[in-house]
Amino acid sequence: MPTRPLVLVHPYPQNRETLFADATWSALNERFEISEDPAEFDALLPNALAVVGQPDLPAERLARAGNLKAILNVEGNFFPNVDYSACFERGVYVLGCGPAYAQPVAEYALGLAIDLARGITREDRAFRAGRERYTIDGNHDAILLRHSDVGFVGFGNLGRALLPLLRPFAPRVRVYDPWLPASVLREADVEPASLDEVLSASTFVFVLAAITDENQHLLDGARLDLLQPGARLVLVSRAAVADFPALYSRVEAGRLLAAIDVWPDEPVPADDPGRSLEGLVLSAHRAGGMTSAFHQIGEMVLDDLTQLASGLPPVRMQVASRELIGRYRSKPVIKE
Amino acid sequence: MPTRPLVLVHPYPQNRETLFADATWSALNERFEISEDPAEFDALLPNALAVVGQPDLPAERLARAGNLKAILNVEGNFFPNVDYSACFERGVYVLGCGPAYAQPVAEYALGLAIDLARGITREDRAFRAGRERYTIDGNHDAILLRHSDVGFVGFGNLGRALLPLLRPFAPRVRVYDPWLPASVLREADVEPASLDEVLSASTFVFVLAAITDENQHLLDGARLDLLQPGARLVLVSRAAVADFPALYSRVEAGRLLAAIDVWPDEPVPADDPGRSLEGLVLSAHRAGGMTSAFHQIGEMVLDDLTQLASGLPPVRMQVASRELIGRYRSKPVIKE
Amino acid sequence: MPTRPLVLVHPYPQNRETLFADATWSALNERFEISEDPAEFDALLPNALAVVGQPDLPAERLARAGNLKAILNVEGNFFPNVDYSACFERGVYVLGCGPAYAQPVAEYALGLAIDLARGITREDRAFRAGRERYTIDGNHDAILLRHSDVGFVGFGNLGRALLPLLRPFAPRVRVYDPWLPASVLREADVEPASLDEVLSASTFVFVLAAITDENQHLLDGARLDLLQPGARLVLVSRAAVADFPALYSRVEAGRLLAAIDVWPDEPVPADDPGRSLEGLVLSAHRAGGMTSAFHQIGEMVLDDLTQLASGLPPVRMQVASRELIGRYRSKPVIKE
Amino acid sequence: MPTRPLVLVHPYPQNRETLFADATWSALNERFEISEDPAEFDALLPNALAVVGQPDLPAERLARAGNLKAILNVEGNFFPNVDYSACFERGVYVLGCGPAYAQPVAEYALGLAIDLARGITREDRAFRAGRERYTIDGNHDAILLRHSDVGFVGFGNLGRALLPLLRPFAPRVRVYDPWLPASVLREADVEPASLDEVLSASTFVFVLAAITDENQHLLDGARLDLLQPGARLVLVSRAAVADFPALYSRVEAGRLLAAIDVWPDEPVPADDPGRSLEGLVLSAHRAGGMTSAFHQIGEMVLDDLTQLASGLPPVRMQVASRELIGRYRSKPVIKE
Repeated sequence: MPTRPLVLVHPYPQNRETLFADATWSALNERFEISEDPAEFDALLPNALAVVGQPDLPAERLARAGNLKAILNVEGNFFPNVDYSACFERGVYVLGCGPAYAQPVAEYALGLAIDLARGITREDRAFRAGRERYTIDGNHDAILLRHSDVGFVGFGNLGRALLPLLRPFAPRVRVYDPWLPASVLREADVEPASLDEVLSASTFVFVLAAITDENQHLLDGARLDLLQPGARLVLVSRAAVADFPALYSRVEAGRLLAAIDVWPDEPVPADDPGRSLEGLVLSAHRAGGMTSAFHQIGEMVLDDLTQLASGLPPVRMQVASRELIGRYRSKPVIKE
Repeated sequence: MPTRPLVLVHPYPQNRETLFADATWSALNERFEISEDPAEFDALLPNALAVVGQPDLPAERLARAGNLKAILNVEGNFFPNVDYSACFERGVYVLGCGPAYAQPVAEYALGLAIDLARGITREDRAFRAGRERYTIDGNHDAILLRHSDVGFVGFGNLGRALLPLLRPFAPRVRVYDPWLPASVLREADVEPASLDEVLSASTFVFVLAAITDENQHLLDGARLDLLQPGARLVLVSRAAVADFPALYSRVEAGRLLAAIDVWPDEPVPADDPGRSLEGLVLSAHRAGGMTSAFHQIGEMVLDDLTQLASGLPPVRMQVASRELIGRYRSKPVIKE
Repeated sequence: MPTRPLVLVHPYPQNRETLFADATWSALNERFEISEDPAEFDALLPNALAVVGQPDLPAERLARAGNLKAILNVEGNFFPNVDYSACFERGVYVLGCGPAYAQPVAEYALGLAIDLARGITREDRAFRAGRERYTIDGNHDAILLRHSDVGFVGFGNLGRALLPLLRPFAPRVRVYDPWLPASVLREADVEPASLDEVLSASTFVFVLAAITDENQHLLDGARLDLLQPGARLVLVSRAAVADFPALYSRVEAGRLLAAIDVWPDEPVPADDPGRSLEGLVLSAHRAGGMTSAFHQIGEMVLDDLTQLASGLPPVRMQVASRELIGRYRSKPVIKE
Repeated sequence: MPTRPLVLVHPYPQNRETLFADATWSALNERFEISEDPAEFDALLPNALAVVGQPDLPAERLARAGNLKAILNVEGNFFPNVDYSACFERGVYVLGCGPAYAQPVAEYALGLAIDLARGITREDRAFRAGRERYTIDGNHDAILLRHSDVGFVGFGNLGRALLPLLRPFAPRVRVYDPWLPASVLREADVEPASLDEVLSASTFVFVLAAITDENQHLLDGARLDLLQPGARLVLVSRAAVADFPALYSRVEAGRLLAAIDVWPDEPVPADDPGRSLEGLVLSAHRAGGMTSAFHQIGEMVLDDLTQLASGLPPVRMQVASRELIGRYRSKPVIKE
């Protein structure tokens, strides 16, 4: 009887129950021998097909993992406790779960953009306070997405998931992404642009960039002042991309409206001035972390392990690249 | 020198300045002789090409309008002070401005649906109250539009404008519209369904029906109980389609979430219980009445008058049908 | 017992069996009392709800059709044997079947365009003659539709059906239509243009215009010379729009490639020089006349009669306009 | 002064001039030091950033390429003269140019499908022979793509490029791909299916699969007999997938219509019986090999080398996987 391939499952700081719906977990256990016991880890590692999660994997430990084909990151960030260089030199796949968040974030970002366009959240608050304004009186700053100028800062998983949702609005889409050649953007039927062009030409700006050493506070006061009066800014990727005090001051002054899902400190301090700004839509890091997204990660793990065990390449998780894996500088997005 | 065709402009209860941007008004005056003076109306009527608005036009008055080609309704409702039968018998076009509202309402309805799907408005309120919940804690009832079951009640201008915005989410769309044969729905790539099927099978239900004598309180308690637990209801057409107390009781019980833009009485009474329901998104008849929509009506008027003056049919406003014009039973949607 | 509404069916020069699939004909007979007997026509006319076809209907005959609600044209052309003015003055719907041909013609036009882009028909002939050229040798003039410049001459039913088929190729689409204001084209997300702009800027030109007194030989030699060298011309609406000798001479000279489905004389004379031009794709008026299109006309008739009998407006056939009905100057498209 | 990175360009059996438009070649030479001299190859290899083409690269030679980051295959097939295992173990990217052919092949496949649906090529031949049949007489077997059942055999680059072109036809798409989990297909909004389901349920079948040891003659007589009478088969990937005599016999018998772009032997023998089959559309391996596609390969090479030189991952060419690279069994597609 052939033994089932061995998979070591250590998803911390994620939670196994969060990731795997019952049916997925059952299927995983049918097809694979699963170990979740940290005490067994070193003993089992030489026989393991794959590690799910990111336990400490320095080079010397990896050296003993002679059958390892993949490390499946289920958290969203690549911590430096794994020697990724050693993985790439060994031809071990490093797989990321970012695609699972793309659709949830894209739908949410569109919802935030329409909210900013039409004042949905603000006017709901007014209605509850008995201050609602009917029809055109409540629509003084309302604008349409249709035929609008849209800018993306970053064109990775999130941008690629958001773009088709915007297509029926027939917007003009300018994209800034320093990691991509212009040809890739033109192939996606968007216009390559500099960051300054994106900011100055767009009515709706979606900040979708991962954070790196190079783009901390990319959106500082000077850059925010490039935005058109009345522009709508949707920030759903990483807080560090924006200078928050500069952003708050412009929202407070009525220069622009913004929806914010990611914050420099989470939880946000009780006295954070953003909490009372009328021009903000406030969201507590909720764009991606849905039950269905977490369950999708579990299914992606199951599918890609099945692929690997069948001699096929992974197709659902994202193959991390040697060039980019060390550049991200973000903190975990999940609640610990 | 050829005289310009004569057009009588009496948009009350709409407002001429609201409808016509300066450039549109200038162009209209260049191409047409315009009269806005009620005192001149009867004297000028026999020579008029068209009437913009809906001043009293009983049969005997229409009988004197021997050159009249069209009545351009710029308000959204067809009041009974015009003898429409006489118009149809004379081959006078009765034109409606509904298409101008379709895109604004469609975008708004999508925004409301995503809000209900993800709790954007509710969680913004919580954030401002210092009660925000991060990531999955705030997403307990969050769902995706992607691959969801969507139902439309009514498939007129609004449904046709909303459908393409939903397409990238690849939903399964069931539509109930008693005024259309199933073939029309199948040609639009949606599934014809009974009202009960739409309600019981859909996670997202968009109420997009005009109100008639037959569909007052179409969504009564029994019908609302067909909805799945956790369904999201978006009401943007006419309040009279729904039984509001029945709707409130189900929202209060947590059976469903709803976004409401139209109300039985506007302004809504100060003590209306809906004002404090957590499961509602409250909106003060703001879906369609944007400046850009009103200006589009002005442009549609200009374009269609130009068509008529050139011996071409109107193509931007909606040609009202003899069969349906008497069926609508709605109150004016604009602020008076 | 209520009697069924009376419908007079006289589809000549169309053929009843061609239009009505058995199930459609059965349903029609269940819902309506049908008369096909010319001898009964005058006696039954006063009670008829509708006439299907276009038997002679001068004003005096129409005057006796006191209950007539619609004339349903099932052939595609409006012959002058009906007094359309009398219809419009009476509020009798004149309905056309053009929409039934739109999808067949649109698919066919796209197929012809790709054929011209890639030489499919020409290289198939070469292959059969043992002269095939492999890979790049056979692709010397091959071009892509993707990101190409596309021009439409006319934007009626055909253009509206073709446009969505082209969208995934992300072309730049310029449209000339003298019967439409620019706003209608911009709303359709195409660029309004003059005829000369369409011809000079487009690599692919689709001639989709109905023929009128004004556009006979619209595409004469001078206009054809505006086309770019190597342009591809698809002619699927009416032959009279183009000057055929001028077109042939430019195709023969290698200035352009063309696909032709409509001809000045049909059948085309045996010695027509077009028969041997390598740069043509030859098609014998086959773009629209498919069995499924004819059957769809039958279904549209059934649906719209049902609508009318229910007090609802027709929604499948096209309501002809008083302004345009007299302008068309085309011969019957069906085989007699 | 920093030296430019070194790139060794040996595209045989492709041709450098075919791949690189002048501007691309100039840009490549500005950014990189280029060597095309086989005599220098071994001496330069230790300093090379990348090799363009597939010269012999056994393990021992690769071992001396200490700075090598990528091998850029510009021909379309991975020959066994490169030790790919050594590449993967070293973390050297093996890049394929397949994506450059995807759009040309997809457009061509759609053109072939419409040709089969409507008889464009066949009726053009008849027209030239004076045997044309007008309107419905020539349309006896004409069908629409709209709302049809479509099947894909294989869902790689070609299928992914073809699918969006088919979307506006609103087909039902079933896909068989043994290398992909069902979830990937469902995410693409197609239906996963077995090969037999694809064949028996589809009116249009697109064969888009690469050839491997396992799928030689996948479409044998028994499988072809699963096809519906009148089915249309488009073969544009690899000839070896189909049993040609079995295919010919069914086309000859009128069981199905087929368009063939790839052949067991190329050039096709002069007496190949396929040359005279009326039910075939014959094409001489022309689906992908367009000038613009070859030039795109050159641009992809330039872009990805620029990415690599900037410490960024390749984004235009396709990163080959260790698992699949050895499975393909195809002959070169280009003309030698």
